[in-house]
Amino acid sequence: MNEPGLGNISIVLVNTSHPGNIGASARAMKNMGLSKLVLVRPKEFPSGVATGRAASAVDLLEQARVVDSLGAAIADSGLVIGASARSRRIPWPLLTPEQCARQALTEVTGNRVALVFGREDTGLSNEELRLCHYHVRIPANPGYSSLNLAAAVLVVCYELHKAALPEAGGEAAAAEREWDREMATSEDVERFYEHLERVLVAVDFHDPKNPRQLMHRIRRLFGRTRIDVMEMNILRGMLTHIENNLTDRD
Amino acid sequence: MNEPGLGNISIVLVNTSHPGNIGASARAMKNMGLSKLVLVRPKEFPSGVATGRAASAVDLLEQARVVDSLGAAIADSGLVIGASARSRRIPWPLLTPEQCARQALTEVTGNRVALVFGREDTGLSNEELRLCHYHVRIPANPGYSSLNLAAAVLVVCYELHKAALPEAGGEAAAAEREWDREMATSEDVERFYEHLERVLVAVDFHDPKNPRQLMHRIRRLFGRTRIDVMEMNILRGMLTHIENNLTDRD
Repeated sequence: MNEPGLGNISIVLVNTSHPGNIGASARAMKNMGLSKLVLVRPKEFPSGVATGRAASAVDLLEQARVVDSLGAAIADSGLVIGASARSRRIPWPLLTPEQCARQALTEVTGNRVALVFGREDTGLSNEELRLCHYHVRIPANPGYSSLNLAAAVLVVCYELHKAALPEAGGEAAAAEREWDREMATSEDVERFYEHLERVLVAVDFHDPKNPRQLMHRIRRLFGRTRIDVMEMNILRGMLTHIENNLTDRD
Repeated sequence: MNEPGLGNISIVLVNTSHPGNIGASARAMKNMGLSKLVLVRPKEFPSGVATGRAASAVDLLEQARVVDSLGAAIADSGLVIGASARSRRIPWPLLTPEQCARQALTEVTGNRVALVFGREDTGLSNEELRLCHYHVRIPANPGYSSLNLAAAVLVVCYELHKAALPEAGGEAAAAEREWDREMATSEDVERFYEHLERVLVAVDFHDPKNPRQLMHRIRRLFGRTRIDVMEMNILRGMLTHIENNLTDRD
């Protein structure tokens, strides 16, 4: 039933206030051939309103995974793209919905992909946006650029569906970036950041009490690289060897 | 405020049952830079539900033209395109939303353009579809192709907005290149690799006599990131602090 590849792409909704938006998002997803919905601390779920708005996509609601944190939602994902309406203080690699679709379909063969959408009023926090490899922004009227949540989900899913159609050259796009290794999962990458932070504290480069955005900048640097599993092994190995060779101090 | 051309394109909703869909359509239109809404015999209008769902697009509802027949709605239009979910008995020139946007923008200079959407349950009648020059169909999951009315309006308006952008995708490409810092020079990057290699030798992670492609893999990892000058300072600072904290050995 689903287009090839789309089955490995999750839509993650963070802290949704209105259950109607959850239902409408499920419908938009199913219309466009997606099926995996993940809800991070929804305000009200399950909900009759969500079921009503989902129409014939109730199966997606029934199978939705409900989790406690964005970290848990994306733990097994090798590519995480977050929807962002505004430009932030720290710029981040930014995709159009079309580019987002190509990127997701290119990487979905070896990886799970998560597309993350924030709250109706405030979107994703800076903290949450930093957990993403890329941000996607929907081009809109600068005078009124705030899309309804389910509308944003629809646009992103619509571009995915278009890109996955055989005629769209979805296959050609897949050939664009073949990689010899799987990507590291978000969980692996988080453990690497923790390890790196320990080392940076040990060598007095980093003071968690006065962080000066150091770890944010490091996340942004490695986040846009997309680390594969072998590279992750190299980085972790480096850190372990460095730790083993540090002067003992108390 | 609106993109050039979009101001002459009307969205016509025929016999809408749910006022929420009228409000959501108005919001989708304004998000994408359209402003002219025409309602053919809506079941309930004006409506508090429509106003609520329109959010900051209430002005479009206030200025909406309410008429008695599709004929009256499209009387002044030189190009009429009707949304069609199913293939009909009478084949008709069929456009994708992208083609629909190009067609509309091509003709909008000398003409008023009307994009027509039917009822939530049964769409446009064959009679109404015959009043259209073209039909537009949104590509969707064959297993569940029935989009919510406002969702269909959004997809069509989104493609219009994309096609009307000065250079399609130009904005996004520009945003992508915006970065808050200069990029590090090749020379800086080479010095970083040399520094990193010295540290990796010192901690016994790297043996230049038996390199096992380590430095190649590290170059590939950092090479695809484009490191900026501030990040380069961070990386070099990390290495210096690590060196200063290594156990003395000979």
